[in-house]
Amino acid sequence: MADTFTMACPSPIASRERVVMAHGGGGRMMQQLLEQLVYPAFSSTQLDRRHDGAVLPGGSRVAFTTDSYVVHPLFFPGGDIGTLAINGTVNDLAMCGARPQWLSVAFIIEEGLPLETLRAVLQSMHEAAAQAGVSIVTGDTKVVDRGKGDGLFVNTAGIGLVEHGLDISPAAVRPGDAVLVSGDVGRHGAAILAVRAGVEFESTIKSDCGPLAQPVLSLIEAGIEVHCLRDLTRGGLATGLIEIAEHSGLHIAIDEERIGVEQNVRGACELLGLDPLYLANEGRMVIFVPQAQEARTLEILRQHPISAGAGKIGHVSGDSVPMVTARSSIGTRRILDMQSGEQLPRIC
Amino acid sequence: MADTFTMACPSPIASRERVVMAHGGGGRMMQQLLEQLVYPAFSSTQLDRRHDGAVLPGGSRVAFTTDSYVVHPLFFPGGDIGTLAINGTVNDLAMCGARPQWLSVAFIIEEGLPLETLRAVLQSMHEAAAQAGVSIVTGDTKVVDRGKGDGLFVNTAGIGLVEHGLDISPAAVRPGDAVLVSGDVGRHGAAILAVRAGVEFESTIKSDCGPLAQPVLSLIEAGIEVHCLRDLTRGGLATGLIEIAEHSGLHIAIDEERIGVEQNVRGACELLGLDPLYLANEGRMVIFVPQAQEARTLEILRQHPISAGAGKIGHVSGDSVPMVTARSSIGTRRILDMQSGEQLPRIC
Repeated sequence: MADTFTMACPSPIASRERVVMAHGGGGRMMQQLLEQLVYPAFSSTQLDRRHDGAVLPGGSRVAFTTDSYVVHPLFFPGGDIGTLAINGTVNDLAMCGARPQWLSVAFIIEEGLPLETLRAVLQSMHEAAAQAGVSIVTGDTKVVDRGKGDGLFVNTAGIGLVEHGLDISPAAVRPGDAVLVSGDVGRHGAAILAVRAGVEFESTIKSDCGPLAQPVLSLIEAGIEVHCLRDLTRGGLATGLIEIAEHSGLHIAIDEERIGVEQNVRGACELLGLDPLYLANEGRMVIFVPQAQEARTLEILRQHPISAGAGKIGHVSGDSVPMVTARSSIGTRRILDMQSGEQLPRIC
Repeated sequence: MADTFTMACPSPIASRERVVMAHGGGGRMMQQLLEQLVYPAFSSTQLDRRHDGAVLPGGSRVAFTTDSYVVHPLFFPGGDIGTLAINGTVNDLAMCGARPQWLSVAFIIEEGLPLETLRAVLQSMHEAAAQAGVSIVTGDTKVVDRGKGDGLFVNTAGIGLVEHGLDISPAAVRPGDAVLVSGDVGRHGAAILAVRAGVEFESTIKSDCGPLAQPVLSLIEAGIEVHCLRDLTRGGLATGLIEIAEHSGLHIAIDEERIGVEQNVRGACELLGLDPLYLANEGRMVIFVPQAQEARTLEILRQHPISAGAGKIGHVSGDSVPMVTARSSIGTRRILDMQSGEQLPRIC
């Protein structure tokens, strides 16, 4: 096992068998860490599906998911660690097509955190939970010594009710499916980046952080045969699509021109040499539906403010080479590769 | 709100409105933090019950709980952060009388953690989950920069099925109830303490860390009318009893002589000026049952290795003064007060 892992990690730091930042970035190195260490330890039918949440058997099916939030800084334009912690978990449940219901909240606080900070985060969580229609029903608080944390880490776990009979997963994706995205991409990552770098643009870049459950539930209620959903967090649109291509074994072809990127986000990316397709989002998802339902799906998505900017960006091609290709504005086509780590660590 | 909180906190550090270690200790200051900041933000029927887990409504009732684990050091005699993270959450579900079923696992890893450490913790979690009969069905991994964490923090959330119709809570406690404890107390806290202090005793003090679900389910299956259960983690036996006394509004009277404390644990306490009644446990609980069922309850508990040392330590008195009193070996009676924080920070 030790050797296998060393060989699979290209970086000299990783070969000394220590965790590096890229292991948390949502890219290839994180996938290796999970595949080689974590999944073998915890193999279960649900984990083996490699989805963001688990759908559990029983009388009424429930979805179950968890995420820890370590975003730095704690506050950024468009949200804070509290709004992220609620919406991130709400969105993971929504990606199972579940109706988010109950959340747990666990804090790891570094000694010395101003109570005013905690109070502001709690207020954000309260508001985000109300907006998303979820109840916080259980929690935990731990305090660690000064210098052994970073202000505040938040974990949320969530339970949602699965009221449909669909199989929403990469395995359900079919050749010919339309690939839709629920709005412009890259805003969350760019917002965090701008704050960290102290860079200012004409107008402030605001995170897209928000709850995606309503548009998803509307699609399901309208009888749309949703094949796959993925929220575009760490690793962004490109990584989300690559994961779906790999787990479905299919080729996803997208048009870069059709992907919305806000002017300021584009500016930040050019200035700092980043690709918006790999920047994290916290209120965006891709939706795979049968081509025949594309128009109706877009119509429903556009009725909700969070997905008002929804559009088609590509389709699933007939050939079964698991990869994602992007056609540029001048007609050239490039293969999107998974990056080894996130461009920006600690963006969620 | 700010003033209220300042006034309620006796320490000069707290009056500057910052989080201090004692806010995480499971004692009075933590209770204040929760009552004054956290609960008001998240008020829900389940949280208002002030229990370790939430029992959720629905076709089949489910229990839901979460805990983060920040124990230092990561490994100690009798377990490690992984066994704690599984058993702690299993035990919180068991305290609802639920059958633990599904767990989520979330890691916050400090950059530089040796993969060998992670591997060992994963192996412990795998074994503990198998022993407790739970499946790990979803998870998350985050990495933070060197110096912004402390090796490894683990969060688990758990779902259990509630297959009984009992109300297991402080509100169900009745005058005359027998107060039982499932074994000797103080071992987890003393084990951590001994490692940290580098103190050695005749034989190594081993943590009592283990799953309590089996004995609890056996009691329920045998038709024991369980009134209240509490696992004795941060703050130990004394704090657990004080919380139950306060939430039930009743007087709990215990005999110190009847409380089992291992010889080495007693030695460590004497050497370091600690009270074993306040030391954390990770495989011990108090059980409140009608006096008529006391003998049968003990008989069932003693059939399970984890609760083989179960015994009666007191009873719920008829007078409705919410407090806990302990009778010493020489017949004097003292009131047990809640300490402001845990004697040892980061014991779980």
